[in-house]
Amino acid sequence: MQLNPDVNQQWRIAARPDGNVKQSDFQYHEDPIPTSGEGEFLLETLYLNLAPVMRMYMQGLPAAGERPLDIGDVIHGRGVGRVIQSHHPDYQVGDVIQGQIGWQTYKVSRATPQERMYKMPATIKEQGLSYSLGVSTLGMTGFSAYTGFMRYGEPQKGDVVVVSGAAGGVGSIVVQLAKIQGCRVIGIAGGADKCAFARSLGCDEMIDYKTDNIPDKLAEYCPDGLDIYFDNVGGDILQACLDRLAFGARVVLCGSISEYLRDEPFGPTNYTNLRAANASMRGFFVYNCADMFDQASHDMAGWIAEGKLKIRENILDGFDKMPDGLAQLYAGANQGVQLCRVRGDN
Amino acid sequence: MQLNPDVNQQWRIAARPDGNVKQSDFQYHEDPIPTSGEGEFLLETLYLNLAPVMRMYMQGLPAAGERPLDIGDVIHGRGVGRVIQSHHPDYQVGDVIQGQIGWQTYKVSRATPQERMYKMPATIKEQGLSYSLGVSTLGMTGFSAYTGFMRYGEPQKGDVVVVSGAAGGVGSIVVQLAKIQGCRVIGIAGGADKCAFARSLGCDEMIDYKTDNIPDKLAEYCPDGLDIYFDNVGGDILQACLDRLAFGARVVLCGSISEYLRDEPFGPTNYTNLRAANASMRGFFVYNCADMFDQASHDMAGWIAEGKLKIRENILDGFDKMPDGLAQLYAGANQGVQLCRVRGDN
Repeated sequence: MQLNPDVNQQWRIAARPDGNVKQSDFQYHEDPIPTSGEGEFLLETLYLNLAPVMRMYMQGLPAAGERPLDIGDVIHGRGVGRVIQSHHPDYQVGDVIQGQIGWQTYKVSRATPQERMYKMPATIKEQGLSYSLGVSTLGMTGFSAYTGFMRYGEPQKGDVVVVSGAAGGVGSIVVQLAKIQGCRVIGIAGGADKCAFARSLGCDEMIDYKTDNIPDKLAEYCPDGLDIYFDNVGGDILQACLDRLAFGARVVLCGSISEYLRDEPFGPTNYTNLRAANASMRGFFVYNCADMFDQASHDMAGWIAEGKLKIRENILDGFDKMPDGLAQLYAGANQGVQLCRVRGDN
Repeated sequence: MQLNPDVNQQWRIAARPDGNVKQSDFQYHEDPIPTSGEGEFLLETLYLNLAPVMRMYMQGLPAAGERPLDIGDVIHGRGVGRVIQSHHPDYQVGDVIQGQIGWQTYKVSRATPQERMYKMPATIKEQGLSYSLGVSTLGMTGFSAYTGFMRYGEPQKGDVVVVSGAAGGVGSIVVQLAKIQGCRVIGIAGGADKCAFARSLGCDEMIDYKTDNIPDKLAEYCPDGLDIYFDNVGGDILQACLDRLAFGARVVLCGSISEYLRDEPFGPTNYTNLRAANASMRGFFVYNCADMFDQASHDMAGWIAEGKLKIRENILDGFDKMPDGLAQLYAGANQGVQLCRVRGDN
């Protein structure tokens, strides 16, 4: 399937996923290109993100603050788009925006709060960076890492930081932020390739959850306990980390991908360990931290340009790859952020 | 059994409790009165505390930072004592101390960190108050309420505060601290008597966990969610409160008495709710907050003297009542703090 500039290409929900998503859960559709009315603007899609939460969208669950979807709806997804038509005073033709575009090649927006549209910083091109960052490091993936770690992790130089999903989109950035803050970092990931990747980002120690005994390795690598656990996975790894809390430890709850395909709901039975350690478990939702996005963009773009923050974008080429790209996420094969190049920077 | 001033009367562990404690788990014993050597002082016991954690001591479990006990050991317990002999430079005959005395009528101490001995403020008698406060409101019960609520609850005027165990030792104080801070307070307790008691302390609404549907009542009384949940019980009530978090809510973990007699360990399966609400679950252990004890003593003694903070001490008279008093705790019959008058203030 080629990009067709004459229609709005879309991926819609054909069926609720049962287990991992498969091709038959998606329906390809072509709509006429929409036009923008008063107070609206039209975007052409440059990049689209692929994220674990999308399976929940397809199941019709409310997630990430988005409305539940019906069969036949265009699937939610954030992307980067360029304004090609505008009847909105705040958005000009040529502006590049990140926001809730959905799985489609055009989007009319009113910049509602629900769409959470943010302009990409004008400096990106001057710094020699790609707009793809708007769905990775300078988008919600990177902002989740930055706001969660910097605000709720409260990192101090010398802290012992454990990061699960250390080779994943958010985790691979948290690892590097922790190193920039002068912390000692223990990464957890699955498989030799992911562990090697996370180590290349700066992890001082790696635990391979597919082969290592996690409690034993945590005891070996954090003999005095952990100061921050940045949790991307939940489940047994969260439980193990709650057994290794240093005094005043902060457990930052970002994701729980290990629980999505579980039959029985998980609850950490050792949550009472928080008491003896005067420790806390802190949840956050990235959109609730929008006051930090400008700072996050500024800091991380600078670190990328300086070579301190390495980017691993796992870019699929072509809008037709979206369904496969999502299935790969749950298969656990990805390193870094998964995204799709629709038109790209051009 | 009369108080015998000529021997050190003790209660020791006769057997590990199975379910609730019973008389045959305790062994009465008389030792000679000890004498203090260099760097030591001798206390006579005025009051002893009765607390849920004591069953864990009797089971030989490490708890509250105390060493695990063997069969035949004197049971751990905090008390108030008067110095009647001293070879320690910091403690003078006549000083009144609260600390780890154990279930006995005399105690030789070196004021080790483990014993956590604190002098009772000299102002107590001037304010017309009893030394019994050293094992209730101005002891670890009150300090748990004060440090947990004030430091980890971070109360703001107008906050909606839910307190479980609202008629219990810690909870009944938290309820009143929350009212003093200008919060709206919803108490949870079991049975009409306890609910009436907690309401008399200032609870704006009461939920009776024995007869009410807790999630329904929380929805009714906190339509916009709760800002602080002060948890004395754990289990299903914690789970229900995690479903009612307002943005930025703080869940303060103080106790989990509902879990002590459970067969299956409990873990809150909805802990991920902390994410959408940018909320946190904060554990604390009172001894880790010793930097606040002076402030807590000063503030609460003042509020008691002014009549703003009501004290419900459930005082058993006589050292022989200790075993029965502990069993009553688990039977859930107590309101306020349970303690035993050994010699009393005199």
